[in-house]
Amino acid sequence: MQKVNVAKKILSANEEYAFKNILFLAEHKILCLNMISSPGSGKTTILTRTINELKDKIKIGVIEGDIQTDIDAEKIRATKAPAVQINTGGTCHLSAAQVNRALENLPVNELDLIFIENVGNLVCPSAFELGEAGKIVVLSVAEGDDKPAKYPAIFAKSKVLLINKIDLLSAGAQVDFDIKRVKTDARKLNKAVEIFPISAKTGEGLTSWYDWLIKSVEKNSV
Amino acid sequence: MQKVNVAKKILSANEEYAFKNILFLAEHKILCLNMISSPGSGKTTILTRTINELKDKIKIGVIEGDIQTDIDAEKIRATKAPAVQINTGGTCHLSAAQVNRALENLPVNELDLIFIENVGNLVCPSAFELGEAGKIVVLSVAEGDDKPAKYPAIFAKSKVLLINKIDLLSAGAQVDFDIKRVKTDARKLNKAVEIFPISAKTGEGLTSWYDWLIKSVEKNSV
Repeated sequence: MQKVNVAKKILSANEEYAFKNILFLAEHKILCLNMISSPGSGKTTILTRTINELKDKIKIGVIEGDIQTDIDAEKIRATKAPAVQINTGGTCHLSAAQVNRALENLPVNELDLIFIENVGNLVCPSAFELGEAGKIVVLSVAEGDDKPAKYPAIFAKSKVLLINKIDLLSAGAQVDFDIKRVKTDARKLNKAVEIFPISAKTGEGLTSWYDWLIKSVEKNSV
Repeated sequence: MQKVNVAKKILSANEEYAFKNILFLAEHKILCLNMISSPGSGKTTILTRTINELKDKIKIGVIEGDIQTDIDAEKIRATKAPAVQINTGGTCHLSAAQVNRALENLPVNELDLIFIENVGNLVCPSAFELGEAGKIVVLSVAEGDDKPAKYPAIFAKSKVLLINKIDLLSAGAQVDFDIKRVKTDARKLNKAVEIFPISAKTGEGLTSWYDWLIKSVEKNSV
């Protein structure tokens, strides 16, 4: 019982900060999206390409969550977008308090959209609300098509599922991945989820993702 | 402070069970390896191929950890090896207590080697000792070559690093992955780590992994 109570206390302290973040973001009319996936699904590559290709339409900032290193924040900064790195030092998810401090270090008056790139982990980050308008889950085809069934929480909670690295499905590559199965399993958990099969490398499928982003920023909700 | 104390209590309760598991495994002369990776790195495929190809040399059993579903245990059972499924119901790692119960449900008198396939997560499982002789970390080339730098704990603690899906590096596939960088970064964290680049799909590189396994089972240590 003690474990449960402590877990509840940690979660509710997190919710207080998440609520502060919601108010702060509303005040500054910024849409905030929390991007979650396994390590190596392509979150940073999706973000750098999205920032570059929407440069003239949306002002984007990024909060980068990593256990260690600022490799990803450096990649974001190379696009000239502002990025704040949070190193969790071993912790498996970002907390709303960490995001709260990071928001103070972004030029919020110049931004339309903030992406939070969470720590690479398909499990823990789904339990921690950060004050975002919505979650984006990324699944690379190299990870296999059984992931919505095996890791249901994040697929149930996300507004968008980006199925990335679809270039690996082309003839010659040895990846077995049934996009139909993923769509069916994800929609069983979450009827309203938007699903965009993309390749952040080749650019395939990105137009629909960009259209969704532009529309969401315009109405400032998802 | 309270959070820290509770975390310590949870970890030390885990260690008690881990110690029980060490004694139990020693008594039954079974080598136990704890396999850890991101979701979709290929743990189950490596295990099914390894079980099939070493059938006449080593008797292998598997403890399967998943958030939900018994998809992986079913794949293991199809090889005729005994498998016990643990569903964590949302928790991001296996605990030593769960492994303790699973060991009771395996035909331990017939086994030389037990693999624990942990929940797909490159972060949390590294903090929980299960009583294993060693950890095996799997990294698929599709995940990128920056992972030892970004998720150092598990690379620092593992006896073996399996770099899987090297078939995706062949001409035609769009995967950038510098095996040398991964080897250098992993060895900076862990001088003694054994590194085997493999493809569980094509079979490339598996002989060295099998030789290491056979040798480790013979001496009952890693």
